[in-house]
Amino acid sequence: MTRNETNDQAEAVRRPGGRSARVRADVLRATLEALAEHGPGGGLTLSEIARRAGVHATSIQRRWGTVQNLILDALLTYSQEQLPVPDTGSLRDDMVALARLITAYLDTPLGTALAQAMAAVDEDPALAGSRAQFWQARYDATRTIVDRAIARDELAADTDHQLVLELLVAPLHFRALLIRQPVEEGRIERMVDALLHGLAG
Amino acid sequence: MTRNETNDQAEAVRRPGGRSARVRADVLRATLEALAEHGPGGGLTLSEIARRAGVHATSIQRRWGTVQNLILDALLTYSQEQLPVPDTGSLRDDMVALARLITAYLDTPLGTALAQAMAAVDEDPALAGSRAQFWQARYDATRTIVDRAIARDELAADTDHQLVLELLVAPLHFRALLIRQPVEEGRIERMVDALLHGLAG
Repeated sequence: MTRNETNDQAEAVRRPGGRSARVRADVLRATLEALAEHGPGGGLTLSEIARRAGVHATSIQRRWGTVQNLILDALLTYSQEQLPVPDTGSLRDDMVALARLITAYLDTPLGTALAQAMAAVDEDPALAGSRAQFWQARYDATRTIVDRAIARDELAADTDHQLVLELLVAPLHFRALLIRQPVEEGRIERMVDALLHGLAG
Repeated sequence: MTRNETNDQAEAVRRPGGRSARVRADVLRATLEALAEHGPGGGLTLSEIARRAGVHATSIQRRWGTVQNLILDALLTYSQEQLPVPDTGSLRDDMVALARLITAYLDTPLGTALAQAMAAVDEDPALAGSRAQFWQARYDATRTIVDRAIARDELAADTDHQLVLELLVAPLHFRALLIRQPVEEGRIERMVDALLHGLAG
C-alpha cells in the first residue's frame, strides 16, 4: 500500500463520499470542459485532462484506461445527472417533462458546447465507439418511459422505442443546433400532442 | 462601358446562359466549398472566395455586397437545386419524398459538411442573419406541401406549418449529425406514418 492510498483511505473516512469520489468528479468535469473547448475529435489527451483536474495522468490511466472510456463516462454521468428519467404516471407528461429537461440542458453553455462538439467533428475511430455507446445508453435509460406507457395501454405493445424517443428528442436538438431559435412557451406541449395524436389526427 | 463588360456581353450572346451565369455558379460553388472547409464563422473572406473561383474580389463585392449575402445565396441556391419541393398528390408521399431528398443530401460530403458547419459554429453577427433567412426561406419553399394538404382536407386548416416541417426534417438531421446512423430501409415511411397518425394512434 502506498502512502497516497493510505491518505486516500484516511480522507475517505473523514469525508463521506471521500477523496476518490471527489477526484472522479473533478476528472469528469475537466473532461467535459476540455471536450467543450476542443470538440471530441480535437486531440484531447489524458495529460491535458490531468492538468486541468490537478491529478496525475497515471491515476486517470489506471482508472479509465483510455481517453475514449473517460469521454464516455463523462458524457453519460453528466447526462444522467442533468436528465433524470421522468416518471409522472402518464406518457404525455413524461414526454413533456423529458423534453423540458433536454431543452434546459441544451440551453446551458456546457450543454450547447457538448452538442455542438458531437455534431461538428469528423468521426475518428476513438470517438465512433463512444458515440454509439452514448446514444445506446441514453436510449436504454429513457426506454422505460415507453415500457411504462405500453404497460398502461397508452402505446401498442410493438411500439418502436427508438422511433418514439428520436421523434421527441430530435426537434429540440434541431432548434438548438441548426435553427438556433428558442423553444417558445407552449411549443413542447404542442409538439408532444402532435406526436401522440398525429398531424392528421 | 468597360472593355470587360463588352466582352461579357459578347460571350453571353455566343453561349446561352452566358458568362454571367457561369461566374455566378463558380462563385457560389467556391463559397460552399470554402464554407464546408472553414465553417461559416471561420473567417471566410471575399478575397479567398474570389481566389477559389478565379474571379476578381471587386466583381463579387459589386454583385453580392457582403460575405453574408453571398453565403445566404450559396446555401439557398444549393438547397433549392438539391431539394426541389415534391408534389406527388398526397401528403404522405410528399413527406416521404422530401425526407428521402434530405437524407440523400445529408449523405453527400458537401451536405454533411454544410450541416456540420451550421451546427458547429458559435454565432457571429454576420451569420446570425443568414441563418434565420436561410431557414425562413426553406420553410417558405416547403410550406406548399402543407398548404396543398390543407386544400385536400388531409390536414386541419389551422395546422402549424413550421411544426409539421420541423418534425419531419429534425430526425433526419439528428441521425446525420449526432447519432451518425444511416437511415435504414423503411424507416422514413415508418416515421412519416407515426407523424401523420400519432404514436398513440
